[in-house]
Amino acid sequence: MGRNDILKSIQALSARKTDAMYLNDFLLTWDKSADEIDATLQTAEILRAMRDHNISCSTFDTGLAISIFRDQSTRTRFSFASACNLLGLAIQELDEEKSQIAHGETVRETANMISFLAEVIGIRDDIYLGEGHTYMKEVARAVQRGHQEGVLPQRPTLVNLQCDIDHPTQTMSDALHLINTFGGVENLKGKKIAMSWAYSPSYGKPLSVPQGIIGLMTRFGMDVVLAHPSGYNLMSEVVAVAQTNSAQAGGSFTQTMRMEEAFKDADIVYPKSWAPYSVMEERTRLLQTGDHNGLKALEKRCLETNKQFIDWECTEKLMQTTRQGQALYMHCLPADISGVSCERGEVQASVFERYRVPQYTQAGYKPYVIAAMIFLSKFKNPAEKLTQLFERGRQRVFGSD
Amino acid sequence: MGRNDILKSIQALSARKTDAMYLNDFLLTWDKSADEIDATLQTAEILRAMRDHNISCSTFDTGLAISIFRDQSTRTRFSFASACNLLGLAIQELDEEKSQIAHGETVRETANMISFLAEVIGIRDDIYLGEGHTYMKEVARAVQRGHQEGVLPQRPTLVNLQCDIDHPTQTMSDALHLINTFGGVENLKGKKIAMSWAYSPSYGKPLSVPQGIIGLMTRFGMDVVLAHPSGYNLMSEVVAVAQTNSAQAGGSFTQTMRMEEAFKDADIVYPKSWAPYSVMEERTRLLQTGDHNGLKALEKRCLETNKQFIDWECTEKLMQTTRQGQALYMHCLPADISGVSCERGEVQASVFERYRVPQYTQAGYKPYVIAAMIFLSKFKNPAEKLTQLFERGRQRVFGSD
Amino acid sequence: MGRNDILKSIQALSARKTDAMYLNDFLLTWDKSADEIDATLQTAEILRAMRDHNISCSTFDTGLAISIFRDQSTRTRFSFASACNLLGLAIQELDEEKSQIAHGETVRETANMISFLAEVIGIRDDIYLGEGHTYMKEVARAVQRGHQEGVLPQRPTLVNLQCDIDHPTQTMSDALHLINTFGGVENLKGKKIAMSWAYSPSYGKPLSVPQGIIGLMTRFGMDVVLAHPSGYNLMSEVVAVAQTNSAQAGGSFTQTMRMEEAFKDADIVYPKSWAPYSVMEERTRLLQTGDHNGLKALEKRCLETNKQFIDWECTEKLMQTTRQGQALYMHCLPADISGVSCERGEVQASVFERYRVPQYTQAGYKPYVIAAMIFLSKFKNPAEKLTQLFERGRQRVFGSD
Repeated sequence: MGRNDILKSIQALSARKTDAMYLNDFLLTWDKSADEIDATLQTAEILRAMRDHNISCSTFDTGLAISIFRDQSTRTRFSFASACNLLGLAIQELDEEKSQIAHGETVRETANMISFLAEVIGIRDDIYLGEGHTYMKEVARAVQRGHQEGVLPQRPTLVNLQCDIDHPTQTMSDALHLINTFGGVENLKGKKIAMSWAYSPSYGKPLSVPQGIIGLMTRFGMDVVLAHPSGYNLMSEVVAVAQTNSAQAGGSFTQTMRMEEAFKDADIVYPKSWAPYSVMEERTRLLQTGDHNGLKALEKRCLETNKQFIDWECTEKLMQTTRQGQALYMHCLPADISGVSCERGEVQASVFERYRVPQYTQAGYKPYVIAAMIFLSKFKNPAEKLTQLFERGRQRVFGSD
Repeated sequence: MGRNDILKSIQALSARKTDAMYLNDFLLTWDKSADEIDATLQTAEILRAMRDHNISCSTFDTGLAISIFRDQSTRTRFSFASACNLLGLAIQELDEEKSQIAHGETVRETANMISFLAEVIGIRDDIYLGEGHTYMKEVARAVQRGHQEGVLPQRPTLVNLQCDIDHPTQTMSDALHLINTFGGVENLKGKKIAMSWAYSPSYGKPLSVPQGIIGLMTRFGMDVVLAHPSGYNLMSEVVAVAQTNSAQAGGSFTQTMRMEEAFKDADIVYPKSWAPYSVMEERTRLLQTGDHNGLKALEKRCLETNKQFIDWECTEKLMQTTRQGQALYMHCLPADISGVSCERGEVQASVFERYRVPQYTQAGYKPYVIAAMIFLSKFKNPAEKLTQLFERGRQRVFGSD
Repeated sequence: MGRNDILKSIQALSARKTDAMYLNDFLLTWDKSADEIDATLQTAEILRAMRDHNISCSTFDTGLAISIFRDQSTRTRFSFASACNLLGLAIQELDEEKSQIAHGETVRETANMISFLAEVIGIRDDIYLGEGHTYMKEVARAVQRGHQEGVLPQRPTLVNLQCDIDHPTQTMSDALHLINTFGGVENLKGKKIAMSWAYSPSYGKPLSVPQGIIGLMTRFGMDVVLAHPSGYNLMSEVVAVAQTNSAQAGGSFTQTMRMEEAFKDADIVYPKSWAPYSVMEERTRLLQTGDHNGLKALEKRCLETNKQFIDWECTEKLMQTTRQGQALYMHCLPADISGVSCERGEVQASVFERYRVPQYTQAGYKPYVIAAMIFLSKFKNPAEKLTQLFERGRQRVFGSD
């Protein structure tokens, strides 16, 4: 994007209605209007282009960004840190083990206590079904109320860094990758995307990525096909969301129990393992009661069930059946690569390797997507602010051209 | 506070004598003169008002702020991070487990090694009686000497984030809360504050908050009443400090073994659990010798002793006996709330809930109090520097009004 | 250094050829030309002087600095944080235990995933012989390729914070200390430096410091003597490097198995313990196979072997034999001090204490050395950028004189 294109993009952004994003959170993509989704993607691209042109996007002279990771994370952790730093915020991680939360303190209290000077709170909470999203809403309510009551001088924005239902920072990055690969959001119309289960010798992988993908990609008029073996169904509420989205946006949403059918003539394939909903439910129960033997038994049983579907692998042969044998392969990473990270996994090594650079590119959008989510929640008129940042023209790297 | 009020406050601050705070630490409030206490509270309010008016308080273009937490912390950890970030400093936590300190390195050496570019060191060390304050003084001496010897280009300021004796960032926030609640420091004269022990089904809580409260509030001409069951006395040195303060400032300092007496006609009540001094002494010995069985036995014995005083609870009934039944309830948080965080605790749930917002507001002063402590140690003429910051008028959030 | 001297130093720097440092890593000092070594030392001194004159060295308005510590660290951790903060970068530590790297993700992938907005990656990996340097090269290759492929918008610089072969941030600080102590790099010619093994009641200490010292100090025309008991030899490749350096730079490189011979008439002594190469090799094997009993047996055997050389101690008596009894004592810290951190160790307490301030000063160069390594990799024309920073004249501490 050239410097003039940045101004054109800001102009285009100004036509989007984003009022409802102001002082609001980003928890589920289907909470957001079409304009808001577009605005987020456009803002991400504008911030990326400004940084590429060595224009500082630093918007906060001081201010905290809090992260709460209730599960392991590398890429999202660094993406969140990168995004917040890009905007001038300093990261402070809440390590629940080092805090006094064990004292029996309420979520309401902790949320306020850490937020006095916080602009954003990013949370990953994807282990327990029925909990992550609920927890985020509880934190959001707490800081909303704290702000209204005058306890917090500003309303910290919540950003969902993966919950039990959705993984919006991932799927929005995926969307940006598709838009840039196919030359515009309008070109996604009618494209077939296969969100398919794939075999992995592991269990307990969250459902949030496939759910997020069918919940988001159905909004661009795509033909979204969800494929998985019997028993590996997703949350029915999210499937309903996909159906509604699809009906509204055009395109289609279909389901199949055959990977081959999903891949046939697909423009994009997203083969990825996840645990059956029923297993996640039982796992949640066992984790909550601390039943270690039960967990072991469940894992063993689940891995055996998985093995029945060991042929759900994204092979070269299967890729040949896609549109002109050239479908775009996608993954949220890290992937289970056959012969590399495991004996048999989600994808054949040669397929993964061929699409390695596109995949890394796909992951690289995440910092900008997160920064856009924050930016749009902080300014009532984001296009105006971006113009001002552009015109300020402060260099990110001193003295570079 | 309006913009003009900020300038008036800075003017008022300029009349305070703060020379001795320059390049000095903040370890105990009773080390500070009345002018210094006032100046700290005023500076906190000025920084808060400037931020509220979107004026950046960033004073350091670069520089480190080091935190050392030898005990769990949430609110103080985030308050310290917020304060340092507000002034432009970057937080670097010293995790003693990840460091080479286990090699047998001296405090003197470590203190210097981490401080080459550090402006401030915040320490929490409240577990061992007789150790926390001693450790802080040792660190202070080390960096003082390092600075004199030319090893350190600047003298890092030490801020006590809670030791075995005092918890000045907490009590100074409490004082600011009182000043703002009662409409000025002059209105605290003659107000009765009950610093009372309260029951909690836990043991080993530090003495630093009650000690800090009687050590500080006796300076404002208040009628300070310390109440606790027999055996739960505080350090006698601090009680002596309270007596001396009170004699100098007017007001009174009295002790009682009846909670009811303390609450009677009180304007402010601060019911909070702590461990008996003798138990803390024994606990320190047992922790140092690693006597786990001894610790378990002590905990059991202490909890049983505590139970004798289970009726030391801040109930609605007791609150009715305070001045017009409307005393301000205070707590340093988190509180042990009956029926919420435990079966029977320090405070009845309805009392806590009624004072929830004031309590959160009370906690919200801490970042500014810490920032003020740092600021006053860094500038010989803080009023002049604040005026310059005000006139610089740099926006904290870009382009906001 | 006065303000005018800063400009003179920048002028001198401009004569150095540093093109090959641009977008390159700093892994081993012997990978760098004489001009590059000199430029790094000069840039460190310029940055230090600018900070001393309250001129901000902040070069990055935003940007991440990643640290990966695979071994404990205090001083290097804080030096790296200080250096990155000095240049305006925000630290984000990769905690491999909290990441998804355990999923079997490749180094290539992780290196890219964390680096989208990263300017520098600092790595300590010194536990396994044959691994640390190899790992750093692998990370470097990964980000180099990621940058070429367009995945990373900038090429993060790798800085070796200690590997199995070299410890360049330490030895470059040591060199700066020598230069400033002896009044210029030209005065190091012909000076005798004794890099000697010393006794310590510990085992498994890395070889990187002694290797780094003989690999670097032989470049300044010094008479470098390496002394150690039989069996405590260093990597033969590095000894070969020292021989080659010495032949090129003048001066000499000799080896002895007598500490006394090394100390005789030495201008500088660097007595420090390390493990025999063969022990490190065996330890690496045992660590990799998780053979705990084998490790215990090895430690016991090694400590017993060590004890044979308990008289390899830097005593006052030995110091008397150095040049006029006044050799400069050096250590990378923390030292094993007889009667302080252990019964018998590397150095007599009175010797250590006498040289305490010089040693702390020596350690204090590290932040600036690291900042210089980063700076030279980021700008093609570092002298021009330093001039611009100087002329910008932004204050590091607001309003200070």
